[in-house]
Amino acid sequence: MSNSPRPDVKRVLLAHGSGGSLSRSLMEEVFLPSFTNPFLAPLNDQAVFTMPAGRLAFTTDSYVVNPIFFPGGDIGKLSVCGTINDLAVGGAGPVYMSASFIIEEGLPMDELRRVTASMSATAKKAGVQIVTGDTKVVERGKGDKLFINTAGIGVLPDSVELTPLRIAPGDKVIVSGTMGDHGISIMTHRQGIRMDVPVESDCAALHGLVEMMLKAGSGGIKAMRDPTRGGLATVMNEFAISSNTAISLIEDAIPVRDAVRGACELLGFDPLYLANEGKLVAVVSPEYVEAVIAAMRAHPLGIDAALIGTVIEKPKGRVLLETSVGNTRILDMLSGEQLPRIC
Amino acid sequence: MSNSPRPDVKRVLLAHGSGGSLSRSLMEEVFLPSFTNPFLAPLNDQAVFTMPAGRLAFTTDSYVVNPIFFPGGDIGKLSVCGTINDLAVGGAGPVYMSASFIIEEGLPMDELRRVTASMSATAKKAGVQIVTGDTKVVERGKGDKLFINTAGIGVLPDSVELTPLRIAPGDKVIVSGTMGDHGISIMTHRQGIRMDVPVESDCAALHGLVEMMLKAGSGGIKAMRDPTRGGLATVMNEFAISSNTAISLIEDAIPVRDAVRGACELLGFDPLYLANEGKLVAVVSPEYVEAVIAAMRAHPLGIDAALIGTVIEKPKGRVLLETSVGNTRILDMLSGEQLPRIC
Repeated sequence: MSNSPRPDVKRVLLAHGSGGSLSRSLMEEVFLPSFTNPFLAPLNDQAVFTMPAGRLAFTTDSYVVNPIFFPGGDIGKLSVCGTINDLAVGGAGPVYMSASFIIEEGLPMDELRRVTASMSATAKKAGVQIVTGDTKVVERGKGDKLFINTAGIGVLPDSVELTPLRIAPGDKVIVSGTMGDHGISIMTHRQGIRMDVPVESDCAALHGLVEMMLKAGSGGIKAMRDPTRGGLATVMNEFAISSNTAISLIEDAIPVRDAVRGACELLGFDPLYLANEGKLVAVVSPEYVEAVIAAMRAHPLGIDAALIGTVIEKPKGRVLLETSVGNTRILDMLSGEQLPRIC
Repeated sequence: MSNSPRPDVKRVLLAHGSGGSLSRSLMEEVFLPSFTNPFLAPLNDQAVFTMPAGRLAFTTDSYVVNPIFFPGGDIGKLSVCGTINDLAVGGAGPVYMSASFIIEEGLPMDELRRVTASMSATAKKAGVQIVTGDTKVVERGKGDKLFINTAGIGVLPDSVELTPLRIAPGDKVIVSGTMGDHGISIMTHRQGIRMDVPVESDCAALHGLVEMMLKAGSGGIKAMRDPTRGGLATVMNEFAISSNTAISLIEDAIPVRDAVRGACELLGFDPLYLANEGKLVAVVSPEYVEAVIAAMRAHPLGIDAALIGTVIEKPKGRVLLETSVGNTRILDMLSGEQLPRIC
């Protein structure tokens, strides 16, 4: 048996997914150097760690974004931030993650290395450990370069109870920053559209921001969500349906970058339906709004935090938008597809 | 916004992955009915549960098996059993799982329903709850029907310490049953090879068997592994390398079905390298061998349990096979690919 480094192998082969010595060399040469930690080192099929008694949060997402590298990020960074954010908006502090790769045969090995290095850097910065994983390889034309799944485990403090069921009329809606950056970044990059001011994805891990918000807002923060696929409009609809209330949003109060607004006008998109990967929306009891927004603006990822709307009684399950021109319209959930493979 | 049932939609569309109302209807009509439980019902992006203090095991695997339905199972059953088994062979009792789907546009909706029903039935039988998930849809030709990722969390009792590092010369090697059934099932089904006695995949959840073994073998069980990709030969090589010992196997003692042996001869495969999805191999201190094998044979998944070899001093990191014809040969780890997309 040979575990020699094989620097000659420049692309991922089907045999790298075979479970044999090429699988082992992929593990030893690509994954372990990026993710090295005491959990992964034994090369067992499971990670073992000790947790205190209490509530845990558990989440998973698969990432199929196309292209896998884009301004402001890549599929690896996205896969780490996305799972951290799903834990964070539930109020949980992310601790451990898994990472599983489905690779299309022929992926350049250095692209895989760039992605794993990006995951490793993102996880390290976030204080999260990638402790277990898996790799599969599919034939050319049966995948698309690289799909990544991450699952994450976080610790949920007893005092935290974030759920749309707590939302009530009078509550205020706050976003942490500009809407639509990720969607426009991917879309313009994918289509090769050149912009005067290129838009970068907002891809970022939000657990630090959430921690500051929970300190400032205590029990006054009712629910939080990261508006990814389907954007702000979809989350607002889900919140209105779950809480059996209505939500009224002020269009002019919703922060959108000029470049994003311009690209949306050009391409026929609505920034309120575009994916974000480093933003959150929170519903907050009115007496805590000021403190929560102040805490958000003191954090680098919440500088543009803004109060954008109010929870009202009816029409139940609906979202209303007071537009710039003074009309009020229903902000529906989309049924169609605005931007496939955005995350 | 409409969440109407849309019984007219017979295939998965790109828009089912958009995060909009079609995503919601897919969730409500396909996933929730299969996986209904109090964790999933709130439709949050994370599941929350309370765990006792102590050691947890955490694992993940992606499944890309082709075809997605095969004799003895399907990709859904496989994805649940596989993750349960990765926890079980570490000695952990599986409790919670995630399930994440990457669907190729055009997958018949009833095939997706069959897969989720199979996952649900398998999880229920195993006493495991699928508590969180995700769905992505990719364009036709950018995936292959359906890929599934599962991650699992299990509770690891303090008394259990299974690691190849504990393996020492004199220890015995035990398998729980016949080798190669899953590999031959997939291979012959994929190629349309008709057999007199069709081989069914052995796909099964092994945590019940492991529990019986741990009761009988106590601290005498040193290490366990489920020989999936790469088969028994690969696990034995990994154990020999990790423990810096050698392992000597008796070819005639290794259970292999006649039909599997026949198919292997016909197709040029070696059953010792074929994937199993409902078998385990354990290394056990000699004084516990009898009790462990007796406990295994008393369990439906361990009826064919057999003692197949011994750990020896050297050649270190090597696996030797005493063949039926009386020779001894090195059983290497394969570098190449015997059977792509077997799991």
